[in-house]
Amino acid sequence: MFKFPQPIQNLINQFVKLPGIGPKTAERLVYFLIKQNNGQMTEFAEALKQAAQNLTFCAVCHNVSEKNPCLICSNPNRDHSTICVVAESHDQAAIESTGDYQGLYHILGGTISPIEGITPDKLKIDELIARIQKEKISEIILGLNPDLPGETTILYLTNLLKSFKIKVTRLARGLPMGADLEYSDEVTLANALKNRSQV
Amino acid sequence: MFKFPQPIQNLINQFVKLPGIGPKTAERLVYFLIKQNNGQMTEFAEALKQAAQNLTFCAVCHNVSEKNPCLICSNPNRDHSTICVVAESHDQAAIESTGDYQGLYHILGGTISPIEGITPDKLKIDELIARIQKEKISEIILGLNPDLPGETTILYLTNLLKSFKIKVTRLARGLPMGADLEYSDEVTLANALKNRSQV
Repeated sequence: MFKFPQPIQNLINQFVKLPGIGPKTAERLVYFLIKQNNGQMTEFAEALKQAAQNLTFCAVCHNVSEKNPCLICSNPNRDHSTICVVAESHDQAAIESTGDYQGLYHILGGTISPIEGITPDKLKIDELIARIQKEKISEIILGLNPDLPGETTILYLTNLLKSFKIKVTRLARGLPMGADLEYSDEVTLANALKNRSQV
Repeated sequence: MFKFPQPIQNLINQFVKLPGIGPKTAERLVYFLIKQNNGQMTEFAEALKQAAQNLTFCAVCHNVSEKNPCLICSNPNRDHSTICVVAESHDQAAIESTGDYQGLYHILGGTISPIEGITPDKLKIDELIARIQKEKISEIILGLNPDLPGETTILYLTNLLKSFKIKVTRLARGLPMGADLEYSDEVTLANALKNRSQV
């Protein structure tokens, strides 16, 4: 049976572990890297090593960061009375990139999905409650995906946060920019109708 | 403007250099790696470093290999009178994985494509001629893609090899396994008709 040289096979094995990359794509990526001058592979290795060494998790918001506490949690200019609860670090990055939010974040580390074995105790919910009890929070924004696990988590957190008498909000649901009414699904359109705003 | 932490941005930049990976996919892959335990990133870095250090090019066939000359060129059990000419290392891997070929290879490093600036002098054609002059070669198999640059290269090499009075063959063109006549393009079907074989 044909075998790739061991260093090539090892590298293919690493690429295959990434989401959406199958053995054929991995092979193509590895041969692409080999075709470049060796500098690129070494740079790539260095970037991975640096990321593994320098990235840590913020003890306050549980976001991935170079510092602990992270630059957002330790920034006195941000609004420390608002927490936006998101599922993952990349959701925080997405909201932060709008430039429209000045509060803090809390990264749950996922959403409730019993079918995948993700129960509330696997998420950073206790840590969120602890933050609310300790700090002076006036609003919790639930920045979760409007899908089944996201809605489940929103429901769970809304119930849990009722006793704290703080404002709990969620992201608006409606038509995304550039949407076409004709191709919008019924739920999106129903939400857009229900949450219509005066012009 | 929002900025990713520097180690994350550096890693995204590395992924974006790969073919078919845009900024969004790169971001997803990086956050996936961060979510795993750090071991995977370090392993990945190590695999890249090892590949950069241990892979070299065979001076005979120009294939990427751990050894120079490579395991195929230095294997006395292979048929040293046949050379299969391929464009890239991964084409060699594809042919080798059939297990049906026992000869040697010659990797051109591309195919003739004047529009992309790849002229015959940029490929390992002189090296191929040198091998033919030095070694006792009875057949050259042109294992190139049946597309425009591949066909151009086949035409060029066929003309060039005429003077050597050795057998020059090319891979058969016809229907691939599992094909559907209804959806086959005209050229493939015409080739399949022209090259039909007796059963």
